[in-house]
Amino acid sequence: MTEPTVEPWAIRETSLDPLRLAQWESVLSLSNGHIGLRGNLDEGEPHGIPGTYLNSFYESRPLPYAESGYGFPESGQTLINVTNGKLIRLLVDDEPFDVRYGTLHHHERVLDLRAGVLTREVDWTSPVGRRVKVRSRRLVSFTHRAIAAFEYEVEAVDTDLRVIVQSELLANEAQPMVAADPRVAAALDKPLEPLEHITEDHTALIAHRTRASGLTMVAGMHHDTEAPGRVQYEVGCQPDWGRATITSVLHPGEKLRLIKLVAYGWSSNRTLPSLRDQVVAALAGARYTGFDGLVDEQRKFLDDFWHSADVEVDGDPELQQAVRFALFHVLQSSARAERRCISAKGLTGPGYDGHTFWDTEGFVLPVLTYTHPPAAADALRWRHSTLGLAKERATALGLRGAAFPWRTIRGQECSGYWPAGTAAFHINADIADAVIRYRTVTGDDSLEEHCGTEILVETARLWMSIGHHDRHGRWHIYGVTGPDEYSALANDNVFTNLMAARNLREAADAVERNPELRGEFEVTDEEIAGWRIAADEVHVPYDKEMGVHEQSDGFTRFPEWDFEASRNSYPLLLTTPYFDLYRRQVIKQADLVLAMHWAGDHFTDEQKARNVDYYERRTVRDSSLSACTQAVLAAEVGQLELALEYASEAAMVDLRDLNHNTGDGLHMASLAGAWIALVCGFGGLRDHGGELALDPALPPGIDRLRFRIRWQGARLQVTVTHQEVTYEVDGGTVKLKHAGRALEISEPVTVRLTERTAAYPRPEQPAGREPVTAARRSARQEQSEAVAGS
Amino acid sequence: MTEPTVEPWAIRETSLDPLRLAQWESVLSLSNGHIGLRGNLDEGEPHGIPGTYLNSFYESRPLPYAESGYGFPESGQTLINVTNGKLIRLLVDDEPFDVRYGTLHHHERVLDLRAGVLTREVDWTSPVGRRVKVRSRRLVSFTHRAIAAFEYEVEAVDTDLRVIVQSELLANEAQPMVAADPRVAAALDKPLEPLEHITEDHTALIAHRTRASGLTMVAGMHHDTEAPGRVQYEVGCQPDWGRATITSVLHPGEKLRLIKLVAYGWSSNRTLPSLRDQVVAALAGARYTGFDGLVDEQRKFLDDFWHSADVEVDGDPELQQAVRFALFHVLQSSARAERRCISAKGLTGPGYDGHTFWDTEGFVLPVLTYTHPPAAADALRWRHSTLGLAKERATALGLRGAAFPWRTIRGQECSGYWPAGTAAFHINADIADAVIRYRTVTGDDSLEEHCGTEILVETARLWMSIGHHDRHGRWHIYGVTGPDEYSALANDNVFTNLMAARNLREAADAVERNPELRGEFEVTDEEIAGWRIAADEVHVPYDKEMGVHEQSDGFTRFPEWDFEASRNSYPLLLTTPYFDLYRRQVIKQADLVLAMHWAGDHFTDEQKARNVDYYERRTVRDSSLSACTQAVLAAEVGQLELALEYASEAAMVDLRDLNHNTGDGLHMASLAGAWIALVCGFGGLRDHGGELALDPALPPGIDRLRFRIRWQGARLQVTVTHQEVTYEVDGGTVKLKHAGRALEISEPVTVRLTERTAAYPRPEQPAGREPVTAARRSARQEQSEAVAGS
Repeated sequence: MTEPTVEPWAIRETSLDPLRLAQWESVLSLSNGHIGLRGNLDEGEPHGIPGTYLNSFYESRPLPYAESGYGFPESGQTLINVTNGKLIRLLVDDEPFDVRYGTLHHHERVLDLRAGVLTREVDWTSPVGRRVKVRSRRLVSFTHRAIAAFEYEVEAVDTDLRVIVQSELLANEAQPMVAADPRVAAALDKPLEPLEHITEDHTALIAHRTRASGLTMVAGMHHDTEAPGRVQYEVGCQPDWGRATITSVLHPGEKLRLIKLVAYGWSSNRTLPSLRDQVVAALAGARYTGFDGLVDEQRKFLDDFWHSADVEVDGDPELQQAVRFALFHVLQSSARAERRCISAKGLTGPGYDGHTFWDTEGFVLPVLTYTHPPAAADALRWRHSTLGLAKERATALGLRGAAFPWRTIRGQECSGYWPAGTAAFHINADIADAVIRYRTVTGDDSLEEHCGTEILVETARLWMSIGHHDRHGRWHIYGVTGPDEYSALANDNVFTNLMAARNLREAADAVERNPELRGEFEVTDEEIAGWRIAADEVHVPYDKEMGVHEQSDGFTRFPEWDFEASRNSYPLLLTTPYFDLYRRQVIKQADLVLAMHWAGDHFTDEQKARNVDYYERRTVRDSSLSACTQAVLAAEVGQLELALEYASEAAMVDLRDLNHNTGDGLHMASLAGAWIALVCGFGGLRDHGGELALDPALPPGIDRLRFRIRWQGARLQVTVTHQEVTYEVDGGTVKLKHAGRALEISEPVTVRLTERTAAYPRPEQPAGREPVTAARRSARQEQSEAVAGS
Repeated sequence: MTEPTVEPWAIRETSLDPLRLAQWESVLSLSNGHIGLRGNLDEGEPHGIPGTYLNSFYESRPLPYAESGYGFPESGQTLINVTNGKLIRLLVDDEPFDVRYGTLHHHERVLDLRAGVLTREVDWTSPVGRRVKVRSRRLVSFTHRAIAAFEYEVEAVDTDLRVIVQSELLANEAQPMVAADPRVAAALDKPLEPLEHITEDHTALIAHRTRASGLTMVAGMHHDTEAPGRVQYEVGCQPDWGRATITSVLHPGEKLRLIKLVAYGWSSNRTLPSLRDQVVAALAGARYTGFDGLVDEQRKFLDDFWHSADVEVDGDPELQQAVRFALFHVLQSSARAERRCISAKGLTGPGYDGHTFWDTEGFVLPVLTYTHPPAAADALRWRHSTLGLAKERATALGLRGAAFPWRTIRGQECSGYWPAGTAAFHINADIADAVIRYRTVTGDDSLEEHCGTEILVETARLWMSIGHHDRHGRWHIYGVTGPDEYSALANDNVFTNLMAARNLREAADAVERNPELRGEFEVTDEEIAGWRIAADEVHVPYDKEMGVHEQSDGFTRFPEWDFEASRNSYPLLLTTPYFDLYRRQVIKQADLVLAMHWAGDHFTDEQKARNVDYYERRTVRDSSLSACTQAVLAAEVGQLELALEYASEAAMVDLRDLNHNTGDGLHMASLAGAWIALVCGFGGLRDHGGELALDPALPPGIDRLRFRIRWQGARLQVTVTHQEVTYEVDGGTVKLKHAGRALEISEPVTVRLTERTAAYPRPEQPAGREPVTAARRSARQEQSEAVAGS
């Protein structure tokens, strides 16, 4: 099994594993949030899943039902693999360069996390004995939104060689067959209809439109070549492809170098001529900057990012690498997404149909808000742009306000199973929470004025129409699904209730802060009073007999799950009917525990400790969203070793393919979770009530943790050791609470830490669901190799 | 609007309403439970839905899901319209006889409920002025299972006429579009693949096979003709049709008479030659009996049935007619079903894909058990024949024992929406209850020995694997759906809990009665003890504050429904998401009220009165299964007028098309419910604990009610007036409890009745959902006509 080498600033693949092509394609994806390229080999084959994605470029497809019901969405959206501009094929004399044949002397690919460039080096001898070295570099530019750039070098090693390089645009590539796993995307056959194809000098353009969703796209490419000898250059186009053919003869040691610039433009509104011009202009701009200029700008952009986002983890080099990998991909998914969605897999693969879920606001945006706030603001502006659709959806459901979709690309609800879709109304509170956090952390009121207040008001209205006061005045929310998708249609889910109550309070506060908006949104004093009363009366079920909170009403009285019997049946959703999951104490992902993170101010320390102890034993982490939250709460209650194991699991989900589905795309929220586990877990970062709070404690295995966050225009650097924490500020003064004590930081301040101890012994996890540590991974691997070898 | 004339023993259509063709086709269906013919016109057109059905002759089709899940059934079954043997077309001189053209002087069709024959009389002048009278009779024989017989007479009225009669078999008729999903339509378009077609003398046979389900069928027809003049007879076949052409010339007053016999044979196992022989043999047998002989046997069969099943309702001629219509169709759906299913629509239309649900055991079988027990025994033997599939399904769901399908034709689960399908596990207790009732009522132990005990044991095992004991020993069933489909995945549904407890107890009793079966089913003493403990500890939620039972845990604390706002939105399932229905106090159909009927011995009189008062106000009767149960409980608690209104609604569902979907087939369970409302409602019939109990009380509007039931080999006739009841027995002695008092009836016994009074005022129903009485029907009609005219 090929695993990346452990190093601080790079992801390195040192051999090509034919069984792990898809995983590596995801891991080595390049994206700027606008365009995404999977790490497919330059020559296209062999591949796991060929993938080139444009943010929000999707096809619509019917959602079928064996038995339909009122309000079931009839149309879904699937992110599609668009025209592939990565392709650069090579003919060596008369043999295609294909690493499956001949002899591969050396293969290495490196994703440089500071450079934002993917480099490849190959040394190969063809079946008849012609040896070449190929070296390529590629990037998706953070500074030229529409541009991907490629450098491709072929070198003759020991004989004269005729090399023919074919650089292509290729539309409607065949896609691999889809599996039955509901988490895998529906593949669409040839989704692109050709509109036009043009060759102009060294440039080729092809334009397509999607059949059902009616989106138009143009892909263009431009080439420059260098070679010591004569070079023959030809370029041509057909409806589904464009191809430049560069032919030359190389003597040993000579190189042919090709610079390929690819640009994409797409729109649901703009005309083909306008998109065509945009693509040609983008190519002109990139040529003006030049390949080396693009590389330099890329580095500078990332230097800025790392300056205020880097997390240093001394003592655990695996985790150090993983958290940087995670932050790099979170940035890639969002940096230039601008008014388009940030999807669960970013633009790294077809998983989940390219949809965005609550993950974005719940896990990705907190990280961006603290490290790269403009991307968080853009993501929230995108949500706001879908508010009209969310209001229509609420009306269709017989509710008031706005009901944001559980999963979507463009804003329409695309969830085909309502108990784990429409019923998961908590997404609305999660969005509201992200709006609130953005203002708290950045101190920027403009988002609230233009978008945020309206989102808060309309989601508050939704909650008022879903919730109800009982005979005794208490406020309840019935029949909804919380984060734990193994419990659906529950009453008084604690997480949902507390988040909805916060949504109501914050809506009231926002309207009172922005009285000029009251008229526009028709908010009355009575309405605001109703929000505050409901929030104050919210019911939080608690099992006195057991001394723990109930995840939802009655949960702790549900029959227990037989974890021992299902030791080898994870994820349970593939082997167990929902019926049985829903009615038992088996938890897919942190739910009550997530409530204790996001609404942690509603629980006492003793409650947190007891609840962690109770819920740890029943949570199977069949969702990759769970480990980071469990890390945060484990750290808070003093289970520091357990917290580190969960932090590692969250961080390693894709680098070690822990869920065996990294090939479908990276788990963006779990990657964000690596930061959350370290910063909120071991840093103790919280922002309840708009206050910055920190309370660091390191686990054995980490010697020093340093992270940077942005807080209201300043940059705060936090350096934690086992003995002490040092707070340093750039650009202002930061007020914070350290372990409950108010500090005002303008000069560096160092505080001694007291040892954190746990009230209970380390809790056990369900059988077979201990955190996946490096030791457990290698034990498992040895076991499976022993089985395979026996 | 054409409604049937009100008469005691017939259903008469006196004009042809082009907007109500489908409804009349269902109402005038003929069936023996083996073959079903919709009441299509002889000449096939105009039609609502052409329909010829063979019990359990279905096609398989994929069940699609927008998001799949473990255990979702992948294949569905749809009853298909088979080769039409009803077709008899007529050419009058050179014009086709089609009542849409020319002048229809007279049209009358009569379904004679004693004769079991459908008669038609038409007097028609063609567009060019040729006048004919056509008279036809048809029957589906109760005594020749495979045979339908047709008599067709054409008479020339005032000129010489050349008449050409074409009698046909026609396969793969075009069907009106039914499903929105293209895959469904594709699977069911021309579902029959031709195998062979044969002409032999006056007989034609065509054979087909279904593509996916692989069922083979043969249809054959034979003709005899009589006419005063020369008759030319020709017969021919093609893969999809067979046709006999009879030509003659008639002088005024002369008639051409055709006798057509049609036979069907079908099987999943047997060979084509064997089926072909079976069909030819059936035709031979029918020819031997002759058309008049078939008519005579039909009458005799029905005389026997009415002798022990008739219900006389003096004072309400509409209800009198309706209950006989209902009993006639219940008999038709089941009489010769034999080891095949009795579906929700019988064999009268394509509704619900021809599936059988819990309706059969819950509503149809009680009626058959008391009136025509052999059909009930056969239906239970059919269920038993699917036990292997039910055990496989339970295993797939991770459960023990047997999980019978929520909807099926052949025994495989075909439900595509699990919260109102798989989760409605109560069907297993309903089946068990029917097994128990059959033994109780008939005194016949043979069914229990051969099938019943095994069903009871395997369903008991299912309940033990679904239910659980809590920390304090109480036994609960969580996460299941009761009869009310507007509440799903509930905990401790009272109906389900009580029925499951009975299932457990009766399984224990049955095993102890049949010790020789213990080894076969591997039942241990411990297992039996476990069943009894669970049954004894079953939890029945009760709201002390409100003083009513909770339909399921917490139901009475759910938010209320705004019935006034939805006054014009029924049925709610077409205008409201399940999300909102599930979490509110809105009830589709009797659930807690049904528990008070079927498990009435677990409630006090006071509880029944309070519960009826509470649940009446929240039950919208969006299911046709509800009215009869509400009638029974309303009668029991002294709401006699309300009970009569519900009884009428149940009885009129199809004769007055109350749900606007009679065209898709009759509501067999609601028709059975007409009997239940009268006999269990006003007769007070119960059989809790194996005891026959009666407690009659008549409502104003019925002067006298007489019904017959079978009890342990005897026939008991019960005659009720407002003053007294008379019990008379044929063939033995019957022990019963009259109003709690033990009687032993061998000679006629008359008992005076005390007046029944209600503890509470008549309860209101949800806005717009008062029982549909004749007065309310005509008020509504006037209103809608006034709107149409304005």
